[in-house]
Amino acid sequence: MKKIGVGILGCGVIGSAVVKNLILGAEDISRRCGLEVEIKKIAELDFGRKKGVPESAGPLFTKDLNEIIASKEIDIVVELMGGLDFAFETIIKAIKAGKHIVTANKHLIAKKGEKIYEEAQKAGVEFCFEASVAGAVPIIRTLKEGIVAGKIHSVLGIINGTANYILTKMTESNANFADVLAEAQRLGYAEKDPTFDIEGIDAAHKIAIMASLSFGTPVDFDSILVEGISRLNSDDFDYAKKFDKVIKLLGIARMDNGKIDVRVHPAMLDCGEPLAKVNGVTNAVELKVSHADELMLIGPGAGGDATSSAVIADIVEIARNINSGSVGRVAPAAFIQSARKNLPMKPIEEIECCYYLRFYVEDRPGVLASMAKILGDNNISISTAYQKDVHGDTVPLMITTHTALEKNIRAAVEKIDKLETTKDKTVIIRLEE
Amino acid sequence: MKKIGVGILGCGVIGSAVVKNLILGAEDISRRCGLEVEIKKIAELDFGRKKGVPESAGPLFTKDLNEIIASKEIDIVVELMGGLDFAFETIIKAIKAGKHIVTANKHLIAKKGEKIYEEAQKAGVEFCFEASVAGAVPIIRTLKEGIVAGKIHSVLGIINGTANYILTKMTESNANFADVLAEAQRLGYAEKDPTFDIEGIDAAHKIAIMASLSFGTPVDFDSILVEGISRLNSDDFDYAKKFDKVIKLLGIARMDNGKIDVRVHPAMLDCGEPLAKVNGVTNAVELKVSHADELMLIGPGAGGDATSSAVIADIVEIARNINSGSVGRVAPAAFIQSARKNLPMKPIEEIECCYYLRFYVEDRPGVLASMAKILGDNNISISTAYQKDVHGDTVPLMITTHTALEKNIRAAVEKIDKLETTKDKTVIIRLEE
Repeated sequence: MKKIGVGILGCGVIGSAVVKNLILGAEDISRRCGLEVEIKKIAELDFGRKKGVPESAGPLFTKDLNEIIASKEIDIVVELMGGLDFAFETIIKAIKAGKHIVTANKHLIAKKGEKIYEEAQKAGVEFCFEASVAGAVPIIRTLKEGIVAGKIHSVLGIINGTANYILTKMTESNANFADVLAEAQRLGYAEKDPTFDIEGIDAAHKIAIMASLSFGTPVDFDSILVEGISRLNSDDFDYAKKFDKVIKLLGIARMDNGKIDVRVHPAMLDCGEPLAKVNGVTNAVELKVSHADELMLIGPGAGGDATSSAVIADIVEIARNINSGSVGRVAPAAFIQSARKNLPMKPIEEIECCYYLRFYVEDRPGVLASMAKILGDNNISISTAYQKDVHGDTVPLMITTHTALEKNIRAAVEKIDKLETTKDKTVIIRLEE
Repeated sequence: MKKIGVGILGCGVIGSAVVKNLILGAEDISRRCGLEVEIKKIAELDFGRKKGVPESAGPLFTKDLNEIIASKEIDIVVELMGGLDFAFETIIKAIKAGKHIVTANKHLIAKKGEKIYEEAQKAGVEFCFEASVAGAVPIIRTLKEGIVAGKIHSVLGIINGTANYILTKMTESNANFADVLAEAQRLGYAEKDPTFDIEGIDAAHKIAIMASLSFGTPVDFDSILVEGISRLNSDDFDYAKKFDKVIKLLGIARMDNGKIDVRVHPAMLDCGEPLAKVNGVTNAVELKVSHADELMLIGPGAGGDATSSAVIADIVEIARNINSGSVGRVAPAAFIQSARKNLPMKPIEEIECCYYLRFYVEDRPGVLASMAKILGDNNISISTAYQKDVHGDTVPLMITTHTALEKNIRAAVEKIDKLETTKDKTVIIRLEE
């Protein structure tokens, strides 16, 4: 049986799961692809992090990743170190050494994917990253090979398990954000520094990748609207419950008249929507496709084992291509490089949707009138208004609007936030229907 | 750009959608795979059925499918005629002529897949059938390439849209089976002869295919337990509602201690279960996988466009392999032929689960006692009992059991059905938890 050599860079949570499952799953893999996928070396600075790695892998460890890049025995380099610049440099070095690349590094692909695609094409090597979006869910494979004739109209995803866990808990228990975050950290669902997860940055990495593969275009990461969940509180969840809605952090990518609309923000969904029912750390991606209507893929978005499942699927895909001499069979970014277009991003100001606005205002006559006037002056018409019966000087006032223009919403909110009677920065949640 | 020639056998609902979307989607396809996929001939006896086919395809029609098999211009033959024996013979003939095969014919694969796998391997051609299960949902691709290191423990699917539509309507409206079926037929969701859909046979074809790919074994179709939905009535749906359950027609395949447990039957699910929320004609497949926890894929399971999306994905997959010289890159049945095992089926009598039993009995003293005695004698313990308050001589009596053995249930029901006080054949629904 032909052997394919693999080198692993980084043996943390995901790396050690990949090592473990490649070794324990060797027979299953061979029965499926007729090849032997063999780990030749594992580069890891911190030798203490080998949790769960079988004893037999012990002699494979090295502290010098150049040994992997230089090894003639290694066909596929699996980058699981994370981080941006060093990972990028290492991958480019490996590509130039003729290695095929597998990575789970969404940050890297969202920011520097274009350069890697180019280098991989130039060197004639594979570059695969199924594990970068939604863990074990085979969404990248579906975007690259499952949908080939139709056009993808939109991609909506719950693609950050930490945020979805926190939002689910806040929906269920009315607890406040800080407490739920602390609980998530205790349970290992949130990192010590949770910024990437709770501020939507991790989800933005993932939606940028999916947008690029869906629409065949580079995506300028810095132009993406990114809003997190850290300012939501129980008043928002109360409101949602009262109006049969659910709050989710969504990654959204839509094709809109030749422009791509890509963003991440909390969104209110009707309870009946399929995405509204996805709870806890689970990830889900909903595709609207011209011939295939709506497809939805759901599964575990994080965790060593689940992510390793996607990493190993990529390793085996490349192994099959090496074996059958078909490297480059599928373009890394779904569309062949020469057929990709540079589509413009839809400016954030041009977004049109219905909005939920939560104000904290002084409880005195005339406040609502002055706010309503500002909204009206900005061409925003009110759909529902709800003032909570709270004792105190400051009351929460929630308004939903009919379809409005983001530019107008921003202008109105800026004015309202400057009113003497407004006691906190307004929270905006977009409605998705 | 390299051209790949395609011949279509059968131009009904699916065939004409494939023709239309291959022609209209030509640019999208080329942008993704760098190839031109060109229809060379379309064999169809009934020229009247070309609905939706672009004018340009007119000259491609022939009544003689041998022209397709003999054509040197055609690389891939797409079988969309349906049916069993003639389709089988035609495919074998095409394989022997060196053609690669795409089909949506689940009946054929479930019954004669093994022989086709063999012949395809012998001839060194591809055999792909994504469209045979769950329409546009990329489940075959996921079973073949998405999960490679882990073991698949179970596959549960709502894989017949007609049945799910009928069950959804019966849940919502308490209408009776015949009326809902008639409505489904009027709307085009059920065929004139609905037997395959409502008696679970179509779902059995699909679960047989998924079981075979998941566990790497041939599946003896005739040994599958197949029960349909035609005997369910509003009493069953009343009960389900009262106990927060939903009735779904499930295809089930489980690996159970080296035996495969494959079956199709109505099942009661808790309302909170993900599959319980899949309504209407939508299909869904839930996979339990060793490393990846639970994956669920949801989408349209039927219809010309949706099914064509899967057929075209297969055509493009084969086109890529032809182009890159990697035919045979992935085994048609997910595992390479030599690594497949002949796993025994778990005998139906050995199934263990909780059961819902609906009896129609005479409303007189002692009836429940005599039935309870029979259940007890057969080692079946009752979990809930519910007698509907109906005026008349015959009353519905619903019982759910604790975990029991199928053999014992069958023995007890046989006895109960022979009681003078039993007025109709007992309906059995298995509980899935």
